[in-house]
Formats: sequence, C-alpha cells, structure tokens
Amino acid sequence: MPADTLRIIPLGGVGEVGKNMTVFELGGEIVVVDSGLAFPRDEHLGVDLILPDVSYLAERRDRVRAVILTHAHEDHVGALPYLLREVRVPEVWGTKLTLGLAQSRLDEHGLLQAAELKEAKPENGHAEIGPFRVEFIRMAHSVPDSMAVMLESSAGRVLVTGDWKLDQTPVDGLRTDVGRLAELGTAGIDLLLGDSTNAERPGFTGSERLVGEAFEQIIPRCPGRVLVACFASNVHRMQQTIDVAVRAGRKITVVGRSMRKNLNIARSLGYVQVPDDALIRPPELDEYKPHEVLVLCTGSQGEPMSALTRIAYNDHPAVSVERGDTVIISAKPVPGNELRVHDSINQLAKAGAEVLHQEIAPVHVSGHAYAEELRTMLGLVRPKAVMPVHGEFRMLAAHGRLAQESGVPAASIILAENGSVVELSRGAARLVDRVDTGVTFVDGLGVGDVQDVALRDRRHLSEDGVLIIVATVGGSNGVPTSRPELIARGISEQGPLLEELQGEADRVLRELVGQRVTEIKLLQEHLHDAVAQLIYDRTGRRPMILPVIVEV
Amino acid sequence: MPADTLRIIPLGGVGEVGKNMTVFELGGEIVVVDSGLAFPRDEHLGVDLILPDVSYLAERRDRVRAVILTHAHEDHVGALPYLLREVRVPEVWGTKLTLGLAQSRLDEHGLLQAAELKEAKPENGHAEIGPFRVEFIRMAHSVPDSMAVMLESSAGRVLVTGDWKLDQTPVDGLRTDVGRLAELGTAGIDLLLGDSTNAERPGFTGSERLVGEAFEQIIPRCPGRVLVACFASNVHRMQQTIDVAVRAGRKITVVGRSMRKNLNIARSLGYVQVPDDALIRPPELDEYKPHEVLVLCTGSQGEPMSALTRIAYNDHPAVSVERGDTVIISAKPVPGNELRVHDSINQLAKAGAEVLHQEIAPVHVSGHAYAEELRTMLGLVRPKAVMPVHGEFRMLAAHGRLAQESGVPAASIILAENGSVVELSRGAARLVDRVDTGVTFVDGLGVGDVQDVALRDRRHLSEDGVLIIVATVGGSNGVPTSRPELIARGISEQGPLLEELQGEADRVLRELVGQRVTEIKLLQEHLHDAVAQLIYDRTGRRPMILPVIVEV
Repeated sequence: MPADTLRIIPLGGVGEVGKNMTVFELGGEIVVVDSGLAFPRDEHLGVDLILPDVSYLAERRDRVRAVILTHAHEDHVGALPYLLREVRVPEVWGTKLTLGLAQSRLDEHGLLQAAELKEAKPENGHAEIGPFRVEFIRMAHSVPDSMAVMLESSAGRVLVTGDWKLDQTPVDGLRTDVGRLAELGTAGIDLLLGDSTNAERPGFTGSERLVGEAFEQIIPRCPGRVLVACFASNVHRMQQTIDVAVRAGRKITVVGRSMRKNLNIARSLGYVQVPDDALIRPPELDEYKPHEVLVLCTGSQGEPMSALTRIAYNDHPAVSVERGDTVIISAKPVPGNELRVHDSINQLAKAGAEVLHQEIAPVHVSGHAYAEELRTMLGLVRPKAVMPVHGEFRMLAAHGRLAQESGVPAASIILAENGSVVELSRGAARLVDRVDTGVTFVDGLGVGDVQDVALRDRRHLSEDGVLIIVATVGGSNGVPTSRPELIARGISEQGPLLEELQGEADRVLRELVGQRVTEIKLLQEHLHDAVAQLIYDRTGRRPMILPVIVEV
Repeated sequence: MPADTLRIIPLGGVGEVGKNMTVFELGGEIVVVDSGLAFPRDEHLGVDLILPDVSYLAERRDRVRAVILTHAHEDHVGALPYLLREVRVPEVWGTKLTLGLAQSRLDEHGLLQAAELKEAKPENGHAEIGPFRVEFIRMAHSVPDSMAVMLESSAGRVLVTGDWKLDQTPVDGLRTDVGRLAELGTAGIDLLLGDSTNAERPGFTGSERLVGEAFEQIIPRCPGRVLVACFASNVHRMQQTIDVAVRAGRKITVVGRSMRKNLNIARSLGYVQVPDDALIRPPELDEYKPHEVLVLCTGSQGEPMSALTRIAYNDHPAVSVERGDTVIISAKPVPGNELRVHDSINQLAKAGAEVLHQEIAPVHVSGHAYAEELRTMLGLVRPKAVMPVHGEFRMLAAHGRLAQESGVPAASIILAENGSVVELSRGAARLVDRVDTGVTFVDGLGVGDVQDVALRDRRHLSEDGVLIIVATVGGSNGVPTSRPELIARGISEQGPLLEELQGEADRVLRELVGQRVTEIKLLQEHLHDAVAQLIYDRTGRRPMILPVIVEV
C-alpha cells in the first residue's frame, strides 16, 4: 500500500444504529474515530451489550496513535474501556464534556491511567494526531459539546460529521458551525462520512428549544407532581426542565444513577446551571406538596430496572405517582423498546397520572439531521465523494440518494458495510476490499463471543422448551435396567403425553439393544428422532431433545 | 339479579388491543359481541395465538343465543371457531362480507354447520336477538361492511361502536351513519361502549382515499416493478391499488395465501371490482417487463413466513426484487413488530428497491377514530354513561377524559378491565363486580393453558441456557462410579469452566456420599446449589441447572 493511501475501515455503525467505530490508517499509523457500543435485540438472548470486533486493531496494537470521540453518547464512547483493555491507545481526544463523561466510565473500569485524555477545542481547534492534521468543528446535537472532525493528510481531506443537526437556537447557543463547514467545502473535501439516521425523513428536525417551550406550556399548569424522563446524557433537556421547574417554583430531584452522575459531571464542568437551593434529595420529596416538586428521572426507554419503570410499578423507595400527577416521557422509543415504553405508560395511567409522550405532545425532538439538513450539509461541503454512515442500510441508501441529487456522481457514493475497506488516494475514494469483522458480546461478566450456536440454542430452548431423556443401559449385555426417565422444561404438555413419550423411548431402546446396537451415539440419535417425531405429531412443536445414555 | 338488569362483561379487549369479546346477559340469556384473538408478545415464548378465556360462557353454555360480529378483523372474529367448539351458539350475526370471511374460517376448522349465519343489514337493519332488540349501524373502518350495534332492552339502550372512523370519502361510498347516530342520541343512549384505540391522538385520521391518491402519485412514475404490502383484510386498499395499477397499465398479481383468499371472497361477494384480464398468476410475472406489473402481497408486519419477508430475503419461488423496483409498505407496524419491519425494509433496500413506508410517505392511514372524531361521536350520541373499550389502559383513560370534557359526569365514566361486571339497570350503569378471567394460549396444535411455569421456564432457558448434570451413584454403598457428566446448551462458556464445574460437581457428590447422604432429592439440591453458585461467580449468569441422579 503506498504511503499516501488512506485506508478507512468502519468496524461498526454502518448498516446499523449503534457501536460506531471507524479506523483511519495511513502509512502504518492508525487513528480511530469513536468507540461505541450497541444494545442487544431480542434475538440476542441473554446478551447484555454488543461491542465492535476490534481484532483488526488488536492485530496492529502498536500502531494505534489515538481515539477521537465526537461526542459523549454510548454508541460513540461506550466501548472505550473494552478497547483500552485490548489495544494500547496513547491518546484519547474529545471535547471537555465528552472527556468528563468518558473519564468517569474509565474510572469505573479502573482504567484512568490507560490513556492520556486530550481536550479538543472546536473553535478553530486543530491538532496533529498520528499522521493527520485534525480539525474539530462545532456541531449541535442532543448532547452538548459535540463535534465533527476533519482529517487532513497527503491522501486528501476527510470530514466526519459525527451526530448532528442544524439547530439555529440550541440551548447553549453553540450552533453547528456552518461558516467553517462552508470554508472547508471551498477548500475542498474529498470524502464526507455523514450521519444518516434521519435521511429518510423529509424536512428539518425541530430545535431542542421547542421542547423547552412545550415544557413551559405544560409544567406550570400541572396540578400535581411532574415527572420528566429523558436520556441521562441529554444535558440540554435536563437544563431546560430545571429552568422551567425553577420558574414554576418547583424543587427538583433527580432519580436514576446515570442521570445523577451525568448531571454532577456536567454541573461541575459548567455545562448546567442549577441554583443550589433548587435541588432536593429524593427522600425529601415528602416534605413538599405535589405541585411544589419536579422529578427528573431515567427510564424513558422502559428499561426494566430504571427509575421510571420502578415508579410505574410502584416499586421505587422514594417516588410514587398518584392521581393528578403528570409524567412527561421526553424521548422516542428506540426501535424494539416500544412495548416496554407502552407498558410503563399504561401502568402510570392506571396509577392516575396523565402521561404525555412524543406521539401525542411536542415533548421530544430528534438530535439527528433530517433530509433537508443533510442537503444543506452536502451543499455547504460539496464533497467529491460521500460515504453514508451511522444508520441501517435503508438510511444509508436514502442518504446516498440525497448525495446524488446534490450532484455527487453515483460512482462516488460509497455504500459500505462494517468491515469494508475504503481507500482514499490523491483525493479519490473507492471501496476496495473488506476485512473480517464481527461483533463481540458482553454476556454477564464475560467479554467475548457468545457463539452463534449458544444463541441458536437459547432461541430454540425459548421457543419450545427442552426434553431430556435419561436412559441407562447395562454394561455387559446392554439390556436397559429401567424405563428411560424424562425431564421436561418449558413444555406445557403433561402426564399422558410424557408417559407416551416415555413408552416410545423405552420401546426404541429395547428394540435397538435387541439388535445389539450399543454404540452410544447411535442410541442417542435413534432415541432423539423417535421422540422428536412423536412429540411433533402430537403437539406440532419441536422442543430441544437431549438424550443422555448412562452405561452402568 | 332482577330480570331488567343487564350485565355487561368484557372477556377481552379492555386494557389491551386485541381479542375483543363482550358478554351481554339479561334475564338468563346471553348475546356476545365479537369473538377475537390476539397475537402473542415476545414474552409469550412459543405461543402462537391468544384467545379470550371463555369459561364464563362455557359454564352457561345453554344460555348463549348469538354472537354478533361487528366486522371481519382477526381481533374481532378470529376466536370464533374456538368459541364454537366450547359453547353452543345458535346464531352468528354479521354483515355479508364479515360472514363471508368468517365462513371460510369456520370451513377450515370443519365448523360450517356449528351455527346459523344470519346477515345483518346496517341500513335500517333491526333484529330480535335473544332478549334484545338490536339495531345495526353502518360505520367506516379499514375493512368494508363494518357496523356498530345498539342493544335495546328493558334495562336501557347500549351502543357498541365497534371499530370505526369518520371517513367522509370512503372508497365504497358507505359513510359512518352520523344521521342515525344523532337520531339514536336524541332517542337516548344510556351507555356507550366506544373504540379507544386513537383516543390519545389529536385531530382526525385521514380518509382511506388519501392512500389511493398517494398511490396515484407514486405508482405511475415507478420505473420498475411495484410491490404493495398491506393487511390481507384491507379490501379497500387492495381495491385502490388495483385501480391505480389498471390505470397505469400494470397487470396485478396477488401473493400470500390469506390475501388471495380474502380477495376471492370479497370479489365473489361484490366488494371488489377487478377486470378479469388485469390479474395474472405469480409464475406469469416473468412474461412481463418490470414496469408492466404490480405485486399485491402480505407481509406488511414483517411476519417471518409472509410473502414480503420471503421476497426480501430472496426466498420466494415466484417474486424477487431488483434495482429500480419500488416497495410500498402500506401499514403501520403493530407495536412489537417494528424491528421485523425494519429488517424487511433494510433487506429490500439492499436488493436495490426504493422502499416507501408510513414514516416517510403518506401510504397509510389509520382505521380508528382520533380524538376529534371521538368528540364528534360523543356529541352525536350524548350518552348518559361511557365505557371506553378497545384499547390499552392509557387509551381508555384518554377516551374517558374526552367523555368528561363532552359533559359525561365523572361517575358515569367506567374504566373497566377484562372480567369487570358492569350492570345497567333503569338506564343507570355502574361497575359492580368482576369475574375470574384469564387468557387461553394456542400453542402448536393444542388449545389451552400454557402454564405459567412453562412460560417461565422458557424465559429462563432463553436468557441463560441450561446445564444438565448427570451423576451416577452406586446402588449399595453409594460411591460415584464416574465423574458427573455435564451437558450445556445455550451457554457460551466452554472448556475450562465446564471442567471446573465438573470437578465441583464431583467434589460435592463425593463429599455427600462420604457423609452417607443417599437421598436423591438432597443430592440434587446440593449439586444444584454448588454448581449454580460457581457458575454465577465465574460468569454472572444463572442458567437453569438440572441435576439428574442415576442409581446403578
């Protein structure tokens, strides 16, 4: 590979929403942008977290110069501790808040010393990182202090947008730096890696401030307690909630470990302003009348152990909900969480609360650019090539169509997958290869592959249950010493069917022994097939059948 | 109970969307409105269908005079065959299309002779059914020939809306009969049982005709094949699709068993008009150019074996999708189906198709009244009391709030649950009691309880897998004859951990035998606890552990 060829390899985040991580490799040196995790789907039975497969980096562990974090969301920073365990990373770059939140996570993993944390300053901020001259550009998003990064090298100029939206009235006043983006466009961008999450949605997303305005309408009129649930990272939304509560004369209490932690960090770094006497601790709630308090809490996704879920099921030590209270769920369910969120809403409604959520009230806006915003970005930057990232395939394809409409030639629109190798050389980008890449599951305390076979087994077990046949065969002449024993779990049929199955197993076993079949594997196979067929005939189901032959 | 007291008992559909069934009992005679089923959620592992618990009816099997079906959707008619097996039902009432679709379902179950099918005619249609004078009122909905029913008796007048919307331009021209509803309101309605599905949504739902207009914009401009997926019962949408296809010079083929069946029935009964030469069979597709055909198919919910899903995964014998094709998913995912639908969209996008769905294009409208429509109904009917039905609790509560705003006294708004007993006597309705009611699972070929313990087992198995310990103990002195054997399924840890577990099981067993413990149950318990603790310490997980002790 020539020294002026840049290899770009997404290890996650392309073809999915989650676990964003992209490798930039030039002249034997590597810089990684983002190190995120993903949350499991129902089919990942019993998996807690999903990480990008970093074996490409582990095999090149001495070449990694830095990780650059575009912002503090889990799908961009959550895998950092796991990455630092596998790979030596001298520097981790990010803005002040991003580093503040990442640092607390590294602390929990005992990894505070694993890398030097270096602050990126988006206003005219530059750094030499590995083989790149890197520029940081301010972007508005649903967590403060987000940024795009431009990586410049002999191979050309690449702009990575990170997650962003065009918010003209962000809560902190820090707008997406369209001026600098336009200048970069004029200077010439060879390749744009752009957030595709909302590429299918026409128009613009609303300003974060719209949510504050909705709160301003809603909260002062509420007769009882107000609970506001949002993502624990949504610092601007917490700020707006706090502002409205203070103006409405309500004390604020924060419930949920991650939200308390993030609010403390954001406050100590100056990202949130809260009057000291505005905050109370949850046990103090009872000292106030319902209309004098507001509860800011986690659980906007209906997560089983989260604050709002426990409150909804009347299982929280400090907070309960009663008739006259108002609950605002200020988030959209991540696909797959809909039913859990609906369950929470129903429980809260049963307790007598009025529940406002994004389907019926303007209490949420997206943090990701819609189609018109993406067109704006494409118009400002006028990239020679576009590689849509951060999205399921349908979103990448929609972003690709927008790029084509904006004048990018079809041949320069790169629809990559995780593991694709894109080369940029003399300002020309093309898809050239792919590397092996998969996913890494975090399962209980262990990090590593939950092998596909284990997931398949769990799926199978969950659908139809398991039937274990324990048969003893005599050592010398092989005659069964007793009828096989059957153990059923997850099978609803009882009594008569189990007896019939037992009889069938016994019959098959005696028949085989009569034919002098003694090979354990063969006995198992025949037992399995006969019992499986009978249970299928009788019930239409296929439980996992495990024959255990004990030689005595 | 006095002879002029009407007991109303919802056996399903209240506190949920699905399995609608309501009992009306007066003077020892019963009429049932609707007999629907529900589809399982993920937590109902391995369950195929969910039915209302009809034991209340089975215990009064000689008192049931009739079932009245308001319309042909599964959640209103799907449990009819199961009900007819349990309970003698002399008459089943419904409109012509409802009966036509129900009849084919009864035929599949060999139950064509089980009840007399009697046609309800909504235009000034009345019937004496059991102890009631029943009136049928035309309603617009997402399946043709839907109706409300008014049950009049000495106890008072009850109006059951069924599923409905205010569509001023329905495809068949048959509007919701607001004139008759107003007359009934003037005559006096004592209790309204009203569809609550969209009570939380402000405004009005769009006319079904809007979908046709969107198709009219989209389909003629499509360069390749067009696939339209919708519910198999959505006869109007099929009609509109067919009309646009014919005008665009495309032949139509219908893929998906339920859709073919429903279209045939609707056509033979005169509910759908299709020129004979417009339809082709799926194998004939290859004889036409892509822009000359349209495929109408099932699979709008991403159901695993449905037509569109098979097409998306390139697994359909007759239909495939390629670059330039357009797929229109003309439905909204039922909560819980979102990820499956997204998977289908991504697969279709990967195959090169442009996929239009309700999030990004006006290709779907709801069949259920929004808040302003419910206000209109409440204003027309002016009921003395309201019992919101057909919805999760949050929807019922929202409908209750609308009723209160429209002037119904709070005490006359009845938020019932499945199994609640509501009495209507001398025109006054109140919640008085509840009966035991549950759900009935259809699991494989069997109908009945999938016991909670089986579901719990399946959940447990699916989360953490199963570990079986097979230990043999000698008959006389109890000394183990060999190390216990371990069988792991759904567990990702291998090798070293399993050996450690095996060693632990062996150690515990020898220790117990050394202490002369020979009681099998005690051995099992100790083995279970020791191995469970060790595996939890090592992995943080709790697989199901099944110790099997074989005495030799």
